[in-house]
Amino acid sequence: MILLQNVFLNNRVCDILIDKNKITKISDKINMQADEVIDCRDKAILPSFCNTHTHASMMFLRGIGEDKILFDWLHQEMFPREAKLKPEYMYALSRYAILEMIKTGTTCFVDMYFHVSGTLKAVQEMGLRAVIPYLGMDFFDDKNTENDIQRAVQYLEEPSENSRIKKVLSCHSIYTCSQKLILTFVELTKKYNTYLQLHVSETQKEVDDCVQKFGCRPAELLYQWGAMGPKTLFAHAVHLNDNEIQLVKKTGTTLAHCPTSNLKLGSGQMPLQKYLDAGLKLTVGTDSVASNNSLSMIAEMKLAALSAKNQADSVLVGKVGDIFQIATKNGFEAFGIKAGEIKEGNLADFILVDMNNQFLLPNNNLKSNMIYAADSSCITDVFCDGKPVMRNKVIPHEAEIISDFKRVCADLAA
Amino acid sequence: MILLQNVFLNNRVCDILIDKNKITKISDKINMQADEVIDCRDKAILPSFCNTHTHASMMFLRGIGEDKILFDWLHQEMFPREAKLKPEYMYALSRYAILEMIKTGTTCFVDMYFHVSGTLKAVQEMGLRAVIPYLGMDFFDDKNTENDIQRAVQYLEEPSENSRIKKVLSCHSIYTCSQKLILTFVELTKKYNTYLQLHVSETQKEVDDCVQKFGCRPAELLYQWGAMGPKTLFAHAVHLNDNEIQLVKKTGTTLAHCPTSNLKLGSGQMPLQKYLDAGLKLTVGTDSVASNNSLSMIAEMKLAALSAKNQADSVLVGKVGDIFQIATKNGFEAFGIKAGEIKEGNLADFILVDMNNQFLLPNNNLKSNMIYAADSSCITDVFCDGKPVMRNKVIPHEAEIISDFKRVCADLAA
Repeated sequence: MILLQNVFLNNRVCDILIDKNKITKISDKINMQADEVIDCRDKAILPSFCNTHTHASMMFLRGIGEDKILFDWLHQEMFPREAKLKPEYMYALSRYAILEMIKTGTTCFVDMYFHVSGTLKAVQEMGLRAVIPYLGMDFFDDKNTENDIQRAVQYLEEPSENSRIKKVLSCHSIYTCSQKLILTFVELTKKYNTYLQLHVSETQKEVDDCVQKFGCRPAELLYQWGAMGPKTLFAHAVHLNDNEIQLVKKTGTTLAHCPTSNLKLGSGQMPLQKYLDAGLKLTVGTDSVASNNSLSMIAEMKLAALSAKNQADSVLVGKVGDIFQIATKNGFEAFGIKAGEIKEGNLADFILVDMNNQFLLPNNNLKSNMIYAADSSCITDVFCDGKPVMRNKVIPHEAEIISDFKRVCADLAA
Repeated sequence: MILLQNVFLNNRVCDILIDKNKITKISDKINMQADEVIDCRDKAILPSFCNTHTHASMMFLRGIGEDKILFDWLHQEMFPREAKLKPEYMYALSRYAILEMIKTGTTCFVDMYFHVSGTLKAVQEMGLRAVIPYLGMDFFDDKNTENDIQRAVQYLEEPSENSRIKKVLSCHSIYTCSQKLILTFVELTKKYNTYLQLHVSETQKEVDDCVQKFGCRPAELLYQWGAMGPKTLFAHAVHLNDNEIQLVKKTGTTLAHCPTSNLKLGSGQMPLQKYLDAGLKLTVGTDSVASNNSLSMIAEMKLAALSAKNQADSVLVGKVGDIFQIATKNGFEAFGIKAGEIKEGNLADFILVDMNNQFLLPNNNLKSNMIYAADSSCITDVFCDGKPVMRNKVIPHEAEIISDFKRVCADLAA
């Protein structure tokens, strides 16, 4: 048991008891023996973030190919470099991504990438939660389809080593995956009672191409294919028309909003408020550092708010409370994880922030300060599943993780 | 003399000599006696930022009145609180703002606010550069006009105590200042060979009201009044038509781009690339924490880049090199300060960043990393005018500055 004493929670000072992996008691004063008592004077407790769309192992591509059009960026910069990736690099790359997530207050991420065994190991060791898919992308080649299906089954059959990790499936997109692959992955997620994740309607071109090829729009197509539902996540979803919005609503499909990536790659601005008003399940993702170029959910919240106001041409939207909720509670909820709010019975995923930090004063509105003013320097401690993953700004093995990452980057640049 | 040894500069490692307030020598190896030798291994040197539009003493208003329309925000939230300000508070408020600027790598700011003696004192003590105006805002009342003119003269007549401080004049805007006040301030800036600063074309409403009242647009009006020129700064300038762009170009007027504030207050997106293509002198400002809510030029660069891409609907614009330059060199240049680039003969205004910091790796593109990934945690040292204002993340008197700020905030909230 861990006892947090004198911690700010919603502008009052209280004690909080953590028993195993849960918040079991919140009270003005808790008198109880605990294995560890943490003096939280001048610290506030907040839920940690859930980053619902990223490609963690792309860390080596930060800053590569700036200010190019999408096609050139992919074909000249990304693909040739990604072709050099080997499974043995992924552990170092993922550890480095997780380091950045912890420093910026994220305790759960939804990944989408290849060679996941290194990522699984990194998550397991560093104590985070993660939703890790087998990523299918057959490029409409039957041999690839069979291979992806076989490996997806194998991935889901292997016993999960860790309660913090959810094994799921991803189909990259409708423009890289065959109908057969997507239909089979839909079946598999039902059979194994797990989640499906896809890039959907990221660009107008994707929508136009879909209409030309299938006679309907991406979400309409995926609805016909049975790929939507409460266990489906659409990443991006910038361009949904009213009918698609209704399909997302009706099926309970979750959307991962990635405002920075969408602006940086020229994909457009998601109509956040329109989606919220329609009652859609919105969450927030950073996408990878190749198109962000940060994994900070703090920075992502600021742009989500500003972009919502700009897109709707109204300062009344992109509200502080909404933005904070989609970056925390909604993300966990989408994957059935009881976290994202500090309350009794919830999992103990949280951050402590220094209320004397430059960026958190004055404390007129802590959530607003976190969205608009904070950076990594505000966060002192991060707990995931009742255990510290950062204490007093120290993350175990940080220096080694950084030097290992530099070694792999040098290898990949050679 | 200060000798920086083994510092990264444009991807090479070199030594840099600082003599008094200047960078006097940059070379692979400098063998010379210096008063202080700083080992900069694994650190890079970059120019510090110049924040060309802020209202430093508004720090107490951070997080107040979120998500309200401009009129309500001003009349319900800002004005009643600002009415409580007393001259004796301004030193504490300005010191707090300067603390935030130093932590985020800014060594020069252009202010616009009242009761400046506290601000002048804070700048002087903490070692920054600043452009501090007497701010005129007569609300079209003759008595106020006379008072503003008298006080402006008095302000410019008082001997400047410090070479790092430029005393200038501001007229708040054409919708708060009479023609007489603006014309007189124009004359005074010529007589005293100093600068003039105004909010111009921040909102479409301002443009529409101007057309209705004067039969021309704001920049056209100010051109007629002789208020434009190489020593004039227009803050915001979101809505300039082609004729106004030509007037800005012809007169050499400088623009302060404040992308966060413009999105947060619903003022729109400045067409950055159109202005750059027209050859306008662009700089970057954070505006105050009331509408940002941060003074970080790092965060401001990221939004400047993303907003430029979105506004122009092209990923080819808002380029890394352009964005970095408008946030550094262009700002200093606008006020005749030879800084913003690390080169021999320039003033020694610079920052050192930790090249092993999480957010600066891999070092594929340092400027891109600074714009898109960095935060305050990357900056270890800040020098202004050849003197350290932050060494190894330590700013003198930080704890006292914070506690003093909290005291003033409590007073103002009472």
